[in-house]
Amino acid sequence: MEKGKLSHTDEQGRARMVDVSDKPVQRRRAVASGRILLQAETVRLVKENQMKKGDVITVAEIAGIQAAKRTHELIPLCHPLQLSKVKVTCTLTEEGVEAIGEVVCSGQTGVEMEALTAIQVALLTVYDMCKAVDKKMVMQDIRLNEKTKV
Amino acid sequence: MEKGKLSHTDEQGRARMVDVSDKPVQRRRAVASGRILLQAETVRLVKENQMKKGDVITVAEIAGIQAAKRTHELIPLCHPLQLSKVKVTCTLTEEGVEAIGEVVCSGQTGVEMEALTAIQVALLTVYDMCKAVDKKMVMQDIRLNEKTKV
Amino acid sequence: MEKGKLSHTDEQGRARMVDVSDKPVQRRRAVASGRILLQAETVRLVKENQMKKGDVITVAEIAGIQAAKRTHELIPLCHPLQLSKVKVTCTLTEEGVEAIGEVVCSGQTGVEMEALTAIQVALLTVYDMCKAVDKKMVMQDIRLNEKTKV
Amino acid sequence: MEKGKLSHTDEQGRARMVDVSDKPVQRRRAVASGRILLQAETVRLVKENQMKKGDVITVAEIAGIQAAKRTHELIPLCHPLQLSKVKVTCTLTEEGVEAIGEVVCSGQTGVEMEALTAIQVALLTVYDMCKAVDKKMVMQDIRLNEKTKV
Amino acid sequence: MEKGKLSHTDEQGRARMVDVSDKPVQRRRAVASGRILLQAETVRLVKENQMKKGDVITVAEIAGIQAAKRTHELIPLCHPLQLSKVKVTCTLTEEGVEAIGEVVCSGQTGVEMEALTAIQVALLTVYDMCKAVDKKMVMQDIRLNEKTKV
Amino acid sequence: MEKGKLSHTDEQGRARMVDVSDKPVQRRRAVASGRILLQAETVRLVKENQMKKGDVITVAEIAGIQAAKRTHELIPLCHPLQLSKVKVTCTLTEEGVEAIGEVVCSGQTGVEMEALTAIQVALLTVYDMCKAVDKKMVMQDIRLNEKTKV
Repeated sequence: MEKGKLSHTDEQGRARMVDVSDKPVQRRRAVASGRILLQAETVRLVKENQMKKGDVITVAEIAGIQAAKRTHELIPLCHPLQLSKVKVTCTLTEEGVEAIGEVVCSGQTGVEMEALTAIQVALLTVYDMCKAVDKKMVMQDIRLNEKTKV
Repeated sequence: MEKGKLSHTDEQGRARMVDVSDKPVQRRRAVASGRILLQAETVRLVKENQMKKGDVITVAEIAGIQAAKRTHELIPLCHPLQLSKVKVTCTLTEEGVEAIGEVVCSGQTGVEMEALTAIQVALLTVYDMCKAVDKKMVMQDIRLNEKTKV
Repeated sequence: MEKGKLSHTDEQGRARMVDVSDKPVQRRRAVASGRILLQAETVRLVKENQMKKGDVITVAEIAGIQAAKRTHELIPLCHPLQLSKVKVTCTLTEEGVEAIGEVVCSGQTGVEMEALTAIQVALLTVYDMCKAVDKKMVMQDIRLNEKTKV
Repeated sequence: MEKGKLSHTDEQGRARMVDVSDKPVQRRRAVASGRILLQAETVRLVKENQMKKGDVITVAEIAGIQAAKRTHELIPLCHPLQLSKVKVTCTLTEEGVEAIGEVVCSGQTGVEMEALTAIQVALLTVYDMCKAVDKKMVMQDIRLNEKTKV
Repeated sequence: MEKGKLSHTDEQGRARMVDVSDKPVQRRRAVASGRILLQAETVRLVKENQMKKGDVITVAEIAGIQAAKRTHELIPLCHPLQLSKVKVTCTLTEEGVEAIGEVVCSGQTGVEMEALTAIQVALLTVYDMCKAVDKKMVMQDIRLNEKTKV
Repeated sequence: MEKGKLSHTDEQGRARMVDVSDKPVQRRRAVASGRILLQAETVRLVKENQMKKGDVITVAEIAGIQAAKRTHELIPLCHPLQLSKVKVTCTLTEEGVEAIGEVVCSGQTGVEMEALTAIQVALLTVYDMCKAVDKKMVMQDIRLNEKTKV
């Protein structure tokens, strides 16, 4: 039995979307990155645009942009925000695909979750488009790189 | 035949999302509540966290928070709003679960529909998680408790 | 501290969408109902189709149908289902609006949550469309009426 | 092989949601229109409200309003916006249904895509509701009529 | 006053998602098409991939595919379906962009609305990406080309 | 200029949701995993359920389950599927949180993307709930562990 839930007084551990209504509206920006490791043969197929499902890099970038806009639907305690810029850049390297995502917003809370969600979905999209030929893909080093407000 | 629909002049009864663009941006807050009646045995199982689908109270609270953010998708004529706080508190009583939901927003229209939607989905989630053991659940007294703007 | 969460062995209370893959595909049907109490003056305005936001009954029915299709997005542990019929009937009475919702599906699990979600969103839509003129609305008696499978 | 995607320096053609954070918040309004051509018999059935799926004009208007709110989910590089008004008017003519949609927003970018999306989904809804009896429907002349900001 | 809504007996004109549960599961396929007219200069910019928002043709095709999957959310009385194939082909011509969309499904009802929705959203995406340079775009001739079941 | 887009004959690199309508309906299962590295102090706060946003482990598990159901909306070329089971288990270790996700479906294509999406969103949710106190979180080793069909 979880005691806290049976009383009005114990609020510890209860989920909430915290109040940001007293925070100032500022221009907030975040940059996140991550990568997916691919087999050498997979890198070659992506480079030559030979994947059956289409152009991996472009589809991944678009999927990342779209996912940023849905962050507050996916992450239960994230606030909805009016994003003013989203850019996702996927770069093919010898080892796989590196993704960098930048999100800007004028709002009362930061956009790091939006940038990270963009990266995750961009990498998942690479995974989806390459999974017919590569059974060893791993996603790594998904992290926040910068967070600023002005 | 519904005559109004065949002329440009009769606007009565036509659905519209009314214009709020001239209303001031204010801090708006609403509190709603409701409850679901459970059998005594069901209350015991929830209290002891024995439901097969998981911890009823916690899942219901999270579902309610998430639903508040999607109110404008569900209710056709509701405006999209950037919610700055959502909190749903479900309390187990002798008779079932009582839910209270609070929503805050800085915007041009009130958040009572968001608070009510949070309550409805929290109660529906309790229903879903208990329906294997309780065939007599009823949801009652879903209403607005407070609505303020500053 | 919630001990169960720190060990692999204690599964009690952990949320899951339970496995229905061994259940037979059957034609499943559910009927749910509920009502919203309105002031006499509000009933009159709905009847005469004088609400500023439009035809209350029709918008509520459509909102309910659409909500049924999104049940699995709203209720965390509900399964996605391919609904084959949804019908929501809202009836204006002396005391308010009564809603009845019927959902049919060929699938591996029942559609009671879809019928109840349709009712909740239909009633919320009535609330939204009447809230400018009625500050005392309450939603009541939302329950499952029938559940069958063939 | 698409060379641009393999280097950091060539940005041409890469999808992005462009930065609008330096644009002023203004009251922005757009009006779009379009039409769907129906057979004479179909027009008669819509007029007499005889379609099996329901009242075509009303359902189409509501669907258009709701779609406007989801424009940023559908169009990959559209910004999310807090719409302050949406109205869709469908008018039955001798030749079919004409739809006009108006959207207003206080924001940093225009709402023409929201108005056009409302029209497209309103027309698609007419198509859906009439398709059992009309196999020759065509949607035509979907365009922007006005775009203003104050 | 709309009399039908006040009685249980008059069902005419009431919205419903019609019952398809008795229809056989079949492989259903639909092809739809449409076009957007662009200025000659806009065609040149799309061809040379010079649009600021990115590669118009590719983004439009992806947006169309994704929209097909959300048809039942947009069109109130459409059934949810498990689409087994979606392809959207946008072709640049002297006059603009032509879009063709093919959708396949194993299910109890046809996929023409999914194919048409894919076309509409693909064309809207072209519109969005070209609107900074072309103020005269019009979408035309959106129609169903084929519908088959096996 | 991307030549392939100007001709009907060159299909290479064009995005498509590939046809799975000839594949048999089978019971398909996938298991994926990943982890997020936390500071020692953050681990302690999660363990003691002291995070301001609520119980990290439980919210992350629920978010992962819900995200699995929305995979086809996020990943452009994924097929919609009727998931019959989703379970996400987050375990707190000395180094952070490990997530394991299992998805089962009766359908025409595998559920590895659904399992991976559940992991990504569960880890993002941990990130969101801990970001006020930990600025060094990194998500690692997100991969598929098992994929079977019967």
